[in-house]
Amino acid sequence: MQLGQQISHPIKKGVHLSVGCNFKVAAIQMNSLPGKVVDNHTRASELIHQSAEMGARLIVLPELFSTGYRTEELDDKLAQVIPGGETTNWMQELCRRYGIVLVASILEHGQIRGLIYDTALTVDASGVLAIYRKIHLWDRENLRFARGQKFQNVDLGFTKLGMQICYEVGFPEGARILAIKGADILAYPSAFGRERLYAWDIATRARALENGVYVIAANRSGEEKNDTFFAGHSRIINPRGEVVAEASLENEVLVADVDHNLIGQQRRQLPYLRDLNTALINRFLCDL
Amino acid sequence: MQLGQQISHPIKKGVHLSVGCNFKVAAIQMNSLPGKVVDNHTRASELIHQSAEMGARLIVLPELFSTGYRTEELDDKLAQVIPGGETTNWMQELCRRYGIVLVASILEHGQIRGLIYDTALTVDASGVLAIYRKIHLWDRENLRFARGQKFQNVDLGFTKLGMQICYEVGFPEGARILAIKGADILAYPSAFGRERLYAWDIATRARALENGVYVIAANRSGEEKNDTFFAGHSRIINPRGEVVAEASLENEVLVADVDHNLIGQQRRQLPYLRDLNTALINRFLCDL
Repeated sequence: MQLGQQISHPIKKGVHLSVGCNFKVAAIQMNSLPGKVVDNHTRASELIHQSAEMGARLIVLPELFSTGYRTEELDDKLAQVIPGGETTNWMQELCRRYGIVLVASILEHGQIRGLIYDTALTVDASGVLAIYRKIHLWDRENLRFARGQKFQNVDLGFTKLGMQICYEVGFPEGARILAIKGADILAYPSAFGRERLYAWDIATRARALENGVYVIAANRSGEEKNDTFFAGHSRIINPRGEVVAEASLENEVLVADVDHNLIGQQRRQLPYLRDLNTALINRFLCDL
Repeated sequence: MQLGQQISHPIKKGVHLSVGCNFKVAAIQMNSLPGKVVDNHTRASELIHQSAEMGARLIVLPELFSTGYRTEELDDKLAQVIPGGETTNWMQELCRRYGIVLVASILEHGQIRGLIYDTALTVDASGVLAIYRKIHLWDRENLRFARGQKFQNVDLGFTKLGMQICYEVGFPEGARILAIKGADILAYPSAFGRERLYAWDIATRARALENGVYVIAANRSGEEKNDTFFAGHSRIINPRGEVVAEASLENEVLVADVDHNLIGQQRRQLPYLRDLNTALINRFLCDL
């Protein structure tokens, strides 16, 4: 399937943007089998099907869901091009089938030979709409991946979406830049570790609150290599920093309403974006 | 009493920095009577006495504790010079008596005639060590106060302290700059409103967690002018974002241990400060 190909399948009823400012989003929490791309696609398909049936229009999958997370020695073999790679095509096919938008992170083979990125992507029926290469790499990811260099939102027509990945939820800066650029929703495909769940809890809510955005944080469940235990607890958070849907530790689908009116309302109640002295902050950051 | 005057009073035993990296800090939560500076000093004295008796070495008072918060029409009359003003001198006297360091915010008459600031200050027995003029003003404060222009820490020898004020706890940027500049502790003299307590809860913990610092957030209790209700819930938070002491809605003294080892330990467990791509963030902020 090619990028930009026309939609030919009939669009499933009930999953399109309803009249007004409201629509449904989903976070998919799932375990992945390292290196087993077909198996992981199959598992994700079932959960995407469930999410679409529940009316979700925008669905976020975990970080590196299609390959598993701890694939160090296989990275080069498993990384895919974007667009045109196996997982990208599979995502596009599901977007056509259900009339949805999918977000995930996958191992990307960059244009420059040898460089592999942990890359989030937004896909719809027409193909890849945007990519985001992880900038703040966690621990040994620094030995595996090249760093991204760019923050940008994708305008979906019915909402504006920013992507960050996992560890980056702890950095307010990326979320802030995306919110100032107009994001309504921040998606965090994640493979966040269980022993740092306390940080996940605080950071996911802080990013929503301080920017007046929805946060969709889709985390991995399960474990890999007997030493990496994922935190689960995927969550959807409203612009007040309230957790409106949360998973436990198993494979699970979360669906929640996004209400654009609440974004405006919250940004009037706590106008952080309006009041931030960006020029002054910038001047001080320059001097650090 | 002059800035820099030598200590002549005997230093109270037991309130000095103990051997090693640990020392005690306090947050004072109190109500203030608008315009009644002497009464407010008296009330604060009692709570400072209690804090010092409990071993606190560094004690944080609420925002505009000595004048009250809603003194719009009296601002010009109540504002004081720093150093040399009534509250500054009173703070220095208490620091001499107890061998402590005090942090608060007060109405400051700036050097340039007519400009009034909401200014946090750090005082010890020798006088004023540092001031911080509130940069991000809340709501009608924009009609009352001039804005600060500078982020800086004060090195107390036994710890490095950064000051921010109230509403600013919701802005990650100021805390981040101070942490990068070396702050171990961030003090937030506050008069935070009750209807936004949900934001206070998230933001105070987020600032501690994402910077690996202690947060001492000393808030007002009570109400003013029948329309301004303060949130209380002063708190001391450790670098993991855990609330180690919290007040309810009344006048109250919170004391907790600061352990510098925990700062280093937390910054190794979640090395946000090390991993932040400051240059990239800066480049994007420049373009906004």
